[in-house]
Amino acid sequence: MFDFEFYNPTRIVFGRGKENIIGGELQKAGHRKVLFVYGRDSIKKTGLYVRVRQSLEGAGVGFVELGGVVSNPVLSHARQGIELGKQEQVDAVLAVGGGSVLDEAKAIAVGIITDDDIWQYFTGREVTAALPVFTILTLAATGSEMNGNSVVTNEETKQKYNISSPYVYPRLSILNPELTFTVPPDYTAYGAIDAIAHVIEAYFTKKKGPHLQDLLVEAIIRTIMMTHRTITKEPENYEARAEFMWAATLALNGLTPAGVGVYTFPNHMIEHALSALYNIPHGAGLSIVIPAWMKWYHERKPEQFERFAQKIFKKNKGEEGIDALERWFACINAPTKLQDVDIPATDINIIAKNAEDLSILWGIGDVYTKKTISEILRLAT
Amino acid sequence: MFDFEFYNPTRIVFGRGKENIIGGELQKAGHRKVLFVYGRDSIKKTGLYVRVRQSLEGAGVGFVELGGVVSNPVLSHARQGIELGKQEQVDAVLAVGGGSVLDEAKAIAVGIITDDDIWQYFTGREVTAALPVFTILTLAATGSEMNGNSVVTNEETKQKYNISSPYVYPRLSILNPELTFTVPPDYTAYGAIDAIAHVIEAYFTKKKGPHLQDLLVEAIIRTIMMTHRTITKEPENYEARAEFMWAATLALNGLTPAGVGVYTFPNHMIEHALSALYNIPHGAGLSIVIPAWMKWYHERKPEQFERFAQKIFKKNKGEEGIDALERWFACINAPTKLQDVDIPATDINIIAKNAEDLSILWGIGDVYTKKTISEILRLAT
Repeated sequence: MFDFEFYNPTRIVFGRGKENIIGGELQKAGHRKVLFVYGRDSIKKTGLYVRVRQSLEGAGVGFVELGGVVSNPVLSHARQGIELGKQEQVDAVLAVGGGSVLDEAKAIAVGIITDDDIWQYFTGREVTAALPVFTILTLAATGSEMNGNSVVTNEETKQKYNISSPYVYPRLSILNPELTFTVPPDYTAYGAIDAIAHVIEAYFTKKKGPHLQDLLVEAIIRTIMMTHRTITKEPENYEARAEFMWAATLALNGLTPAGVGVYTFPNHMIEHALSALYNIPHGAGLSIVIPAWMKWYHERKPEQFERFAQKIFKKNKGEEGIDALERWFACINAPTKLQDVDIPATDINIIAKNAEDLSILWGIGDVYTKKTISEILRLAT
Repeated sequence: MFDFEFYNPTRIVFGRGKENIIGGELQKAGHRKVLFVYGRDSIKKTGLYVRVRQSLEGAGVGFVELGGVVSNPVLSHARQGIELGKQEQVDAVLAVGGGSVLDEAKAIAVGIITDDDIWQYFTGREVTAALPVFTILTLAATGSEMNGNSVVTNEETKQKYNISSPYVYPRLSILNPELTFTVPPDYTAYGAIDAIAHVIEAYFTKKKGPHLQDLLVEAIIRTIMMTHRTITKEPENYEARAEFMWAATLALNGLTPAGVGVYTFPNHMIEHALSALYNIPHGAGLSIVIPAWMKWYHERKPEQFERFAQKIFKKNKGEEGIDALERWFACINAPTKLQDVDIPATDINIIAKNAEDLSILWGIGDVYTKKTISEILRLAT
């Protein structure tokens, strides 16, 4: 075990109908007016929008709305939210949606209380304060509901970058698995891939050991795969949606990497370039990058890939595990090659250049050069 | 998955030499004078006492000492601490020791800021405030370093009761596995048993499912057993001590029971009577109670006992799993029968009466009557 700090102050309220407590919780916490951030029409179709409004109104909590957050949330829209929040003098941000809505809401929460441009914080400046963030989650995938991460895309510069700060941990996140019943099969699959991606980055890139964290990672992967199978057949199976949701939260709340020492996020780094340039869903990008990266990387950690093959797929060899994972991605209708999402192999240089910039920002530029990233991407053609 | 709330605001700082940051952390948090609570001589022998003093003095944090906390901490001593803390107007409590020291420190932290007698809170009254608690852990066992529990024994009434409150979660807990190098084999074994006991209570007494939590519990049990084996041979093996320590923390920090619904603590309930009456170590009481309780209970949850047998001991039948666990307890030199700690079978009625009172307080009195508890205890003779 390497030295670590663990601190996760987010309060989780999990269960059916829990979204109805939001007004009361905000009121108890002393908030008078919140910025209510959401995405497109889905929360209106499901009735969630009305329930949230009623809860806020019932508790006497004022609000101003910012709808229209898109998947791979964009900087220009976050800036609109910051402007609106400042004008309206909100004292908290309420995000109702999936990881994109939560991530943009966190960026807005940072931006409202500073006169500096928010993008600075995505390119290296440390966050030192933010308005309190509250969330109601409608998509199990990113773990944003219980961590201090926010990923936003600067559409002008084509950079998909992140902030990571204790100030943007949500104060309260409400997880009602029923709100994910209507998530379509493709986004459920992308959520599964995202959650698995979150735990395998450290699992494979850390040094050897510790055993406990490997067991926790394997527990999460097996849960995600098993519950995903049930959800495919029965999208409204509460138990499966619930375990899937909680497993996705635990996948990126600090639990699994505690004590593993230095590790890196190469798959996310390369994927961010794909989403930034082609606006494909994050999970779809990951299912293309992961098998390619694994094929390139596995000889550096043969025992861990063997372990993965055995524990997750009951296969003997590392290569068989990688193959099984790639086939599982294909099986759940996720893309596994660049051409599956119409990205031509001739673009590899452009993608690699974009990824290299992020790789340098994340301090892994010595290993993940443009050349190396191109090599990995060629394995996805 | 059943509805649940998860909230654990304790910050963990884990690693070698981390005890030296305590003064700076208290100072940063604005504390001027703390009650420094510890047990017997062990922290003086190891030099920890001096290091903590130096850290406090170096940071200009005043302190007043309360040594002498005993295993199964007693109410009269906690009351002394409360008196001292009030007189000296401390603004935080620093516990340096094992679970007993931490538990008593939490009780003191509640008692200092009220004029009411502290025992009221152990017999049902809700805690509504406490001084901030900081801890440096020297024994991996109880999980008190990352939860809101405190167990104290009223020596006059022979009641070993607890409080459970969000107000007594430590603000900061420092976990340095090196501080556990000198824990003797018997207490290391009791720590292993205590950690296992914490996860199996919900594992066996909850309703069916969810799968994820079962996997987490099994990961913790296997880690505890595996690392304990290494520690037995090499007490100063850092990796083993470290994984053992973190597994014991995760065993009672709210992670494993999240979502499992209603569950009970029958083994702890019966054990508390044993410690209260005979002052035996908590882990030693648990290793006597658990196999007996399992033999009495297993027909009520045959599938879960089969699963336990398979996952932990690679046995097929539930009974074989219970037998293997009992043999493992004996193997690590923990008592498994009342007579192993010189408690005569003729005392069973007295023990059962003491346990029954707690069983009623804990709301499980309908199942765990004096008669039932006696029946269980007879299986430990």
